[in-house]
Amino acid sequence: MSVVVRNVPRVERRIATAFAEIGVATVHEAQGRMGLLAPYMRPIYAGARIAGAAVTVSLAPGDNWMIHVAVEQCREGDILVVAPTSASDVGYFGELLATSLQSRGVQGLIIEAGVRDVRDLTAMRFPVWSKHISAQGTVKETLGSVNVPVVCAGTLVHPGDLVVADDDGVCVVAREQAQAVLDSSVAREKKEAAVRVRLKAGELGLDIYDMRGRLAEKGLQYRDADKD
Amino acid sequence: MSVVVRNVPRVERRIATAFAEIGVATVHEAQGRMGLLAPYMRPIYAGARIAGAAVTVSLAPGDNWMIHVAVEQCREGDILVVAPTSASDVGYFGELLATSLQSRGVQGLIIEAGVRDVRDLTAMRFPVWSKHISAQGTVKETLGSVNVPVVCAGTLVHPGDLVVADDDGVCVVAREQAQAVLDSSVAREKKEAAVRVRLKAGELGLDIYDMRGRLAEKGLQYRDADKD
Amino acid sequence: MSVVVRNVPRVERRIATAFAEIGVATVHEAQGRMGLLAPYMRPIYAGARIAGAAVTVSLAPGDNWMIHVAVEQCREGDILVVAPTSASDVGYFGELLATSLQSRGVQGLIIEAGVRDVRDLTAMRFPVWSKHISAQGTVKETLGSVNVPVVCAGTLVHPGDLVVADDDGVCVVAREQAQAVLDSSVAREKKEAAVRVRLKAGELGLDIYDMRGRLAEKGLQYRDADKD
Amino acid sequence: MSVVVRNVPRVERRIATAFAEIGVATVHEAQGRMGLLAPYMRPIYAGARIAGAAVTVSLAPGDNWMIHVAVEQCREGDILVVAPTSASDVGYFGELLATSLQSRGVQGLIIEAGVRDVRDLTAMRFPVWSKHISAQGTVKETLGSVNVPVVCAGTLVHPGDLVVADDDGVCVVAREQAQAVLDSSVAREKKEAAVRVRLKAGELGLDIYDMRGRLAEKGLQYRDADKD
Amino acid sequence: MSVVVRNVPRVERRIATAFAEIGVATVHEAQGRMGLLAPYMRPIYAGARIAGAAVTVSLAPGDNWMIHVAVEQCREGDILVVAPTSASDVGYFGELLATSLQSRGVQGLIIEAGVRDVRDLTAMRFPVWSKHISAQGTVKETLGSVNVPVVCAGTLVHPGDLVVADDDGVCVVAREQAQAVLDSSVAREKKEAAVRVRLKAGELGLDIYDMRGRLAEKGLQYRDADKD
Amino acid sequence: MSVVVRNVPRVERRIATAFAEIGVATVHEAQGRMGLLAPYMRPIYAGARIAGAAVTVSLAPGDNWMIHVAVEQCREGDILVVAPTSASDVGYFGELLATSLQSRGVQGLIIEAGVRDVRDLTAMRFPVWSKHISAQGTVKETLGSVNVPVVCAGTLVHPGDLVVADDDGVCVVAREQAQAVLDSSVAREKKEAAVRVRLKAGELGLDIYDMRGRLAEKGLQYRDADKD
Repeated sequence: MSVVVRNVPRVERRIATAFAEIGVATVHEAQGRMGLLAPYMRPIYAGARIAGAAVTVSLAPGDNWMIHVAVEQCREGDILVVAPTSASDVGYFGELLATSLQSRGVQGLIIEAGVRDVRDLTAMRFPVWSKHISAQGTVKETLGSVNVPVVCAGTLVHPGDLVVADDDGVCVVAREQAQAVLDSSVAREKKEAAVRVRLKAGELGLDIYDMRGRLAEKGLQYRDADKD
Repeated sequence: MSVVVRNVPRVERRIATAFAEIGVATVHEAQGRMGLLAPYMRPIYAGARIAGAAVTVSLAPGDNWMIHVAVEQCREGDILVVAPTSASDVGYFGELLATSLQSRGVQGLIIEAGVRDVRDLTAMRFPVWSKHISAQGTVKETLGSVNVPVVCAGTLVHPGDLVVADDDGVCVVAREQAQAVLDSSVAREKKEAAVRVRLKAGELGLDIYDMRGRLAEKGLQYRDADKD
Repeated sequence: MSVVVRNVPRVERRIATAFAEIGVATVHEAQGRMGLLAPYMRPIYAGARIAGAAVTVSLAPGDNWMIHVAVEQCREGDILVVAPTSASDVGYFGELLATSLQSRGVQGLIIEAGVRDVRDLTAMRFPVWSKHISAQGTVKETLGSVNVPVVCAGTLVHPGDLVVADDDGVCVVAREQAQAVLDSSVAREKKEAAVRVRLKAGELGLDIYDMRGRLAEKGLQYRDADKD
Repeated sequence: MSVVVRNVPRVERRIATAFAEIGVATVHEAQGRMGLLAPYMRPIYAGARIAGAAVTVSLAPGDNWMIHVAVEQCREGDILVVAPTSASDVGYFGELLATSLQSRGVQGLIIEAGVRDVRDLTAMRFPVWSKHISAQGTVKETLGSVNVPVVCAGTLVHPGDLVVADDDGVCVVAREQAQAVLDSSVAREKKEAAVRVRLKAGELGLDIYDMRGRLAEKGLQYRDADKD
Repeated sequence: MSVVVRNVPRVERRIATAFAEIGVATVHEAQGRMGLLAPYMRPIYAGARIAGAAVTVSLAPGDNWMIHVAVEQCREGDILVVAPTSASDVGYFGELLATSLQSRGVQGLIIEAGVRDVRDLTAMRFPVWSKHISAQGTVKETLGSVNVPVVCAGTLVHPGDLVVADDDGVCVVAREQAQAVLDSSVAREKKEAAVRVRLKAGELGLDIYDMRGRLAEKGLQYRDADKD
Repeated sequence: MSVVVRNVPRVERRIATAFAEIGVATVHEAQGRMGLLAPYMRPIYAGARIAGAAVTVSLAPGDNWMIHVAVEQCREGDILVVAPTSASDVGYFGELLATSLQSRGVQGLIIEAGVRDVRDLTAMRFPVWSKHISAQGTVKETLGSVNVPVVCAGTLVHPGDLVVADDDGVCVVAREQAQAVLDSSVAREKKEAAVRVRLKAGELGLDIYDMRGRLAEKGLQYRDADKD
């Protein structure tokens, strides 16, 4: 059955905004190394960093009809997450759809498939994380669903979940856990800032993290190189 | 038999120049979704956009001798299209060959193999769409052919055909159809411009393209999210 | 047995510095097409070019403990070369480790695995050539070795060997041969400079390299295109 | 948090057994083209066909500790479904674990990673569908979970779900829908049997499925080949 | 425009039959190393060897409608060659279509996409060379063409061309050149038979092919291993 | 410099023969998880198992001349190990070379590239572990070396080293360590045999390997599934 679910509860805007300052690597660590999309999901241009609520789209391979349907369900701050039901490398999304989404305040697109018009999308500063880039278009023949749970690049995404994306990839945080993960992300960043100062000063991680004992216990040996 | 065909008829310069303003995605749509090279053909730097007549090269894997031969057959505005007879990831082309081509007015290179000196090529603004980047060079032992039909990245290219390339990939248009495809590309761009204005104003594609009836007919259902 | 070898002899700093001006493609040619890492080793940002002595790390897949150990063995001008003992796409290295290495004067990282914090690394101008980019982190459970010979991306690297890396990839030169390869690289560059001038002036490689005779001898035929 | 969930409700044995007679392609069609694992999941030997309840395992890359834990949770007729939290090609499973599972009546293994001892597993007729074959083993250092929902090869699997696997791949059916999908699979098979008889007799699908009218309507043209 | 071309001229049955005794590697060599499809085209079972005239199908990704149309155009001894217009890994072909083709005397299928029911196809001894195996099916919505030139796995195939396939892959010979390639294949096989006898008797290829002089001339050196 | 090293010391025949009874997975474990070639090295047919001394070949991509040279250096019981200096998927080796090697008592071939005539090789029972299968041949133009250290599929192989290969892949053991690795492999097999008996009787690995305490200590929790 094809369905569009309206008015899904979303991660709070305030929380999402706070995540935009935090890197994906940190978020992923902070929630126990869960929620990362496969590393073949790459940004079309470097330097973008977004965080928002997922509007999810499940669609047929080679068919982008449901993206048009999904636009209407998007709100300010949302991020569109699109997964075809089988692998496909064609271009489901281009500059016209981005114009439409941008006019509604959508922050970006995550798509486990192809995207096109990347020169225009870059000029518009509409970031996309995709598996492929391809000029080949799609048809509009088969129904899919909007705002149902989808598996995107190996990770389960529920509508309304928090999506964070930067140059390292894309991470999903369950809506209910967003505040907790934010707290531990912030704590983690603080701790890292302190370590960074010491590393810059030339202290070794071996000492800062107190690793020498455990290394010796496991049997690590040091020896000098043979002269030559 | 190895052959170099001289003085192949080329798509008109006037037509090729007009295509340089039009994106690959549009050209590909305008000619009925034909002629696109496989999406693994990627530009070595972002932002280049070229359109010109193909000079084709069929060569042995790991051997770039015929590229040297092909240079002499190139004219102002041409684009070199190179396909080895079996898959190969080494670097067939670098800065010296680019210098030679650029001195003849050649616009760029399409190669289903590897390229090297990409830092220099970027600095020279000589664009290349390739399958690989590799510093490993080639030999000059085996003959091939210049200006015969070749299959490059899954697409048949005849010498003199129009080649259009940008950040979305590479598309080939048969020489005889170039004017017709140009006309329909331009028409398509005009139509899209009008739609873009409406999308920017917040109108939905669902309404502009009048999709709601057909979606309902196919059985799409809308429902509100469960409260939680 | 896990071992850390200290004070390995390194390629001379003076030689390494001279290599930084020479492209990887030239170095690779100059040493007889040896020493190139597989072409899937790609830089995280364009335009970096480094040359220095290898500090090598062999580690367990998904475990970056030995990188922390290796930091202490690094000196001004070194390049870290990391190879897991089986294929792995997670992120072994990020901004904190880079901060630590940069504070010791290390020039960059070569890793046949994943890296993360690429936005920060780019901002810091700490170049990395890696097989993957991934936000997913590692554990610190299993010992490996530092400054033992490793196979990285298909190429054998000894500690202290010269590593050269740019946008075309990564090449390794044995420490003992570095001066000889430098000499022949410089000679090669000089020769290419002379050819470049002639190519820019429109001369053909066919004539400069005197290829016409051998092409004819091998049976290459020229013919004019049929009129149409 | 690491957890082992005991006594999960399972798809009924009677239903699973009935599925073993039906091919994966048919099951996949019968449930509306849902539930198929990615096509890189291949059997280690041809001809196996199994259907049973999923016992799911989520584990760290390069660590098979939780498979040992999962054995105890397996019952007669179950199928083990294993997914590491990041991509990994090492061998998590071999003949000893298979011996243990076979002694408990487990039918086979689905693993989005590597397997080893494939010659022994083939001789034992313990079928495995895996992404890789590799002799390289794993460690036992990090906890994971048993019988939690996992994403395996791009598809969400709940413990107790029906898993069907044959030479075409692997398909998952939600436990609650298993009876309904069985009914429609059987109906589908009956219909296909009738068509098969007619096709063998030389009738055309074009006529059996009554396609000619719709083809003509869409504009398909027939013409005879040019003489030559 | 979608078109079905009827009654295409085919390579003679007598010639095709003679090719069935000759391996693909020999045919490929005998026609000057042309015509080989990409090596990712693999047989679904080992040991099949066929040669016949191509009936070509160009179809939309994820849509097998035109295969149903093509069946009617097939004759005794033909081989179906199917290429989607963009990459696709789903299963376009299964046991029912094979039953229909087998009833018409078609020898096998070459498809640059996925196939399913491979257990049944193996049992029926209907050989398929494909890029993928996948249980996921297709739709019947979009027209394509039958018996037009197609690019399949990187090679141009005209309808009526000779197709030869075995465990090494698939090779295409232009219809007009089939007799000439047959003659030189047979000559090649005779020559190899004579060499085989000498090799079995322990003679070295170095001597049979008289390579020693040229090796010495190129500078090959022999030395004995150091004692140890 | 191209060189053929004659009379390299080889692992003892007696030791190699003993290894033929032991699986690659066991050998790899027994030598501390070292020496395994990348898992893309797959046998052309199932069930072969060989162990012998390596004769190594380093050759140019697309050029099999040095294999002809290497034949003369092979002795009864040897295994040929071939690595091109850059990635290549063409067929370097076929039935004639196998005939020649088999007449000298060579046991099989390990090649990080393509092989052809696989139907004939299977019929002859000459096993090959390769990365590719391809009918496309090679040239004989460029020198390489025989019996020098090579990196094959990511692993360093010295001439005379022990090579073991079966359905799980290929493992290399340094000649000097072969006896020690044999001893620990045999010990390992004995231990596994005892465990196998207990597993067959239904005992759990959790108990045999005494894992429960450590799992509890790490925090593993057990709970019963919710009723539904």
